[in-house]
Amino acid sequence: MNNFTYTLEHSDGEARAGQFSTPHGTIQTPVFMPVGTQATVKTLDPLEVEAIGSQIILSNTYHLYLRPSADLVAEMGGLHRFMQWPKPILTDSGGFQVFSLGPHSKIDEDGVTFKSHIDGSKHRFTPESAIGIQEKLGADIIMAFDECAPQPTTHAYTKAAMERTHRWLLRCIAAKTRADQALFGIVQGGVEADLRRESASFIAQQDVPGIGIGGLSVGEPKEQMYGMLEETTPLLPRNKPRYLMGVGSPEDLLEGVARGVDMFDCVLPTRLGRNGALFIPEGRLNIGNAKYAREDAPIDATCDCSTCQRFSRAYLRHLFRTEEVLGLRLATLHNLRFLIRLMEQAREAILQDRYQSFMDDWLSRFQTIPHAVREASRAARLNSLRTQGDKA
Amino acid sequence: MNNFTYTLEHSDGEARAGQFSTPHGTIQTPVFMPVGTQATVKTLDPLEVEAIGSQIILSNTYHLYLRPSADLVAEMGGLHRFMQWPKPILTDSGGFQVFSLGPHSKIDEDGVTFKSHIDGSKHRFTPESAIGIQEKLGADIIMAFDECAPQPTTHAYTKAAMERTHRWLLRCIAAKTRADQALFGIVQGGVEADLRRESASFIAQQDVPGIGIGGLSVGEPKEQMYGMLEETTPLLPRNKPRYLMGVGSPEDLLEGVARGVDMFDCVLPTRLGRNGALFIPEGRLNIGNAKYAREDAPIDATCDCSTCQRFSRAYLRHLFRTEEVLGLRLATLHNLRFLIRLMEQAREAILQDRYQSFMDDWLSRFQTIPHAVREASRAARLNSLRTQGDKA
Repeated sequence: MNNFTYTLEHSDGEARAGQFSTPHGTIQTPVFMPVGTQATVKTLDPLEVEAIGSQIILSNTYHLYLRPSADLVAEMGGLHRFMQWPKPILTDSGGFQVFSLGPHSKIDEDGVTFKSHIDGSKHRFTPESAIGIQEKLGADIIMAFDECAPQPTTHAYTKAAMERTHRWLLRCIAAKTRADQALFGIVQGGVEADLRRESASFIAQQDVPGIGIGGLSVGEPKEQMYGMLEETTPLLPRNKPRYLMGVGSPEDLLEGVARGVDMFDCVLPTRLGRNGALFIPEGRLNIGNAKYAREDAPIDATCDCSTCQRFSRAYLRHLFRTEEVLGLRLATLHNLRFLIRLMEQAREAILQDRYQSFMDDWLSRFQTIPHAVREASRAARLNSLRTQGDKA
Repeated sequence: MNNFTYTLEHSDGEARAGQFSTPHGTIQTPVFMPVGTQATVKTLDPLEVEAIGSQIILSNTYHLYLRPSADLVAEMGGLHRFMQWPKPILTDSGGFQVFSLGPHSKIDEDGVTFKSHIDGSKHRFTPESAIGIQEKLGADIIMAFDECAPQPTTHAYTKAAMERTHRWLLRCIAAKTRADQALFGIVQGGVEADLRRESASFIAQQDVPGIGIGGLSVGEPKEQMYGMLEETTPLLPRNKPRYLMGVGSPEDLLEGVARGVDMFDCVLPTRLGRNGALFIPEGRLNIGNAKYAREDAPIDATCDCSTCQRFSRAYLRHLFRTEEVLGLRLATLHNLRFLIRLMEQAREAILQDRYQSFMDDWLSRFQTIPHAVREASRAARLNSLRTQGDKA
């Protein structure tokens, strides 16, 4: 595990600035990780993903297992080489995706049997096979195979799913063979405070170099998600990074950091971008709106991205109106840079002991669209049961 | 017209190496011009278009007139600034597009009335308005409004269309007001040798800084197209560039250069690329083919493009199979670079007096797929009457 050292540089309240070392480079936290579901961050070249300051990307095991297959990726030298991304990669376990298949997946104590969303063919994941697949893919950080209980559900079912997740973690740890990959355990427990505490305590005791927090941002009110984080992070070891899985709205990133989270991923910025919804300091801008037709200004005059440095709102709107691919690219690039820069600024604020005022100030300008953002986020994760990951 | 000087550097048989100066830079010929129908070369960022050695791009007046409108482009500072392309631009007149609308266009001596393919609204182009629109767009090279007679047709109709094209050219010359734009006249005459000669002689006498050759590669056998070029170029002034409109297969570029053509444009490379058909020195490679699933080699080991320098055939195939935008980008980039490099090599060969052997050698390796390439080229120009230009 010497490859994987988390250094807590500075705390400001619960907010943390740190560094996490991996075989493909050291990650400065807090960090937002762009999602490259099918071994590509949708619409972008890896050179662009790097140019906007991405330190690590996430890829989806379920999708890569089906296409092109873990064996093929391994044969091509692993995911880094296959997709020409030289920096750290994190793969999920595929668990969230196969459980999202709903009636097309069937769980038992040993694992999950499911049908491919592509051709209906039958497959099976177990904790052992999820680790085996991730070892073939070769990411720097791999995730334990867990059960994310569907919400809403009963306390009893949430408890059963959490306990199975704990048993599966032990099997994942036992199955793991590669020393150049970090296996993260995952805290579950739904929206039950007692279960979140129990799960956090259990995962904290395991010999894993990092900890995921799963099962949140799946439809519950934001306040409930923040509450669950407050039950969880104080029980986690200070010397390991905490990764809040699938969370990606600007306000959730800031609130998560305030509660001790170090890492985030979500398809929200890329998917919103492809739908013409662009982050600006005041909230969101829908580039399809006719009022931008003759606006010579950039999307966001305060942004340092390649889109905002060169192109007008009028041009962006033209590209979306005519359904040109370049529009998807420029919007994706901007939205990702927006979140990455937000985390860079958060880190700087933490190091300067002014995180709370930075966050308050930022949020006072940013008009969240609670319902709309929630729905988009929910859609991004749950809407199409067959297409979990970053799909069109 | 001092802005626009063509310098013939060297002749090798009929093949010419030259330079054409414009307000946005000097173009080394022979040259292939990528098509950016809607103010964007499909899937690419202008920085990428420049990086592959593009010296000039073409944009379509008909499409820009409808969306976002010539007035809007002018208000945004012209096409160069709007799309952030700093080098020369050529716009067509819109004539080819409106005539392609078939029953949705109606010609008279004064101009053409047509219905928009987008919303069916009624519009009218005349020689004067086609020039007015192109002056608003602000390209370096603008084209005369001409009638490209549908093929096959009678000698009589081809003659009438040609004569109208000549009369319209005089009106275009009279209507033109900007000194920083070069207006090219267009030779028509279908596949009638006598009319091609008559048209070439007429256009040669006009005070225009360059000459387009239209109405070819619209379905006639390749040999007939080459024959028409042989009737045309010997009658054109040596001190003006010749632009063969809408021609873009590698073999047609080489055969065109051998017959004294200096400039080419076509949607073929970009459209083929988006369909996964990639140029290689041996012909074409269809990346969807299962045999490339585990091929670690680049598309073309002899290519210097960013795609071939970094990515394997296996990865490209994965991107196409999963319908990822990056696949379209990488394929487009490669195909364009392939043609641009071909013209760079042709120019070098001309300057070294070895063009014929260069071409023979190149064509002996390159397996043309006459029917398939013809059909693709035909499809690219004629298949969808409503979507002339580079459309998906």
